[in-house]
Amino acid sequence: MLSHIDAKPKVGYFLGTAAHDVHAPSKLIESMKVKDVMGIPFLLRETVTVSDAVVALFLENVGSLMIVNQEGVLAGVVSRKDLLKVTLGHATATAMPVSLVMTRQPNIITVKPEDSVLEAARKMIHHEVDSLPVVKAIEGREGLEVVGRITKTTMTKLLLDVALGK
Amino acid sequence: MLSHIDAKPKVGYFLGTAAHDVHAPSKLIESMKVKDVMGIPFLLRETVTVSDAVVALFLENVGSLMIVNQEGVLAGVVSRKDLLKVTLGHATATAMPVSLVMTRQPNIITVKPEDSVLEAARKMIHHEVDSLPVVKAIEGREGLEVVGRITKTTMTKLLLDVALGK
Repeated sequence: MLSHIDAKPKVGYFLGTAAHDVHAPSKLIESMKVKDVMGIPFLLRETVTVSDAVVALFLENVGSLMIVNQEGVLAGVVSRKDLLKVTLGHATATAMPVSLVMTRQPNIITVKPEDSVLEAARKMIHHEVDSLPVVKAIEGREGLEVVGRITKTTMTKLLLDVALGK
Repeated sequence: MLSHIDAKPKVGYFLGTAAHDVHAPSKLIESMKVKDVMGIPFLLRETVTVSDAVVALFLENVGSLMIVNQEGVLAGVVSRKDLLKVTLGHATATAMPVSLVMTRQPNIITVKPEDSVLEAARKMIHHEVDSLPVVKAIEGREGLEVVGRITKTTMTKLLLDVALGK
């Protein structure tokens, strides 16, 4: 199952070593882009089971996973909440494909690398989700490629950065 | 089961109507206290079942619940993650008391109403939890009373406040 997890190690967020110098904190927040702070996306194929997805969530210690199809195109997002809903009292649910419980396109809330961090924060609050996939259009093809992940944890770290950078 | 949920409606967080005026954003963050931004805690008795806890999580749309004993003293915290671990493939787990799966005192990370918001943010990042119970000592007795709840959602809203208040 683990072979299904693709990580993109060159996309990372490190507290205190952001791309910008932190001198004018609130100005900084406004000019920061998603690509400056996004983290590594955790990707699973849509053919894995609910059980595989739960194990991956625990192994990676994340709140949600991005589900991609055979071509690597974003197909869905699955959260602890989605999985909890289906595992409660259904022992057999664990063998179900994750694609049956995930949130599917076009219902996935996404951001682009060039979007502002504040736009991402606004989307998470408005749509009541804890993380967003960061996506890019794929040249010459339909669909979106997942290039990162931004979460309320990212925002909490940023808030600390803002205060420390004063 | 719902009769077990006690909400404290007078403790609330409202975006844009914080106790302070938002004129000097980053100065503001440093001076803000947990009690200025904390939300309503959702409390369940430790005798409820795992199934009750999952239903309460969905009804209240929260990521974690505070568990209290008969005297209303904080006994534990239970998160989506704790519940997911126990519901996966164990149909009978739903009838288990929530006290078997919760994180117990003295392992619960807490903050006090007078603590700074930044201290709360730091604790959530350091201990890798998404929310913290806000607690007070109970006069003349052992244990802690839960008076609020602060989460990474609170922090994400604060980040937006900081930028909007510029």
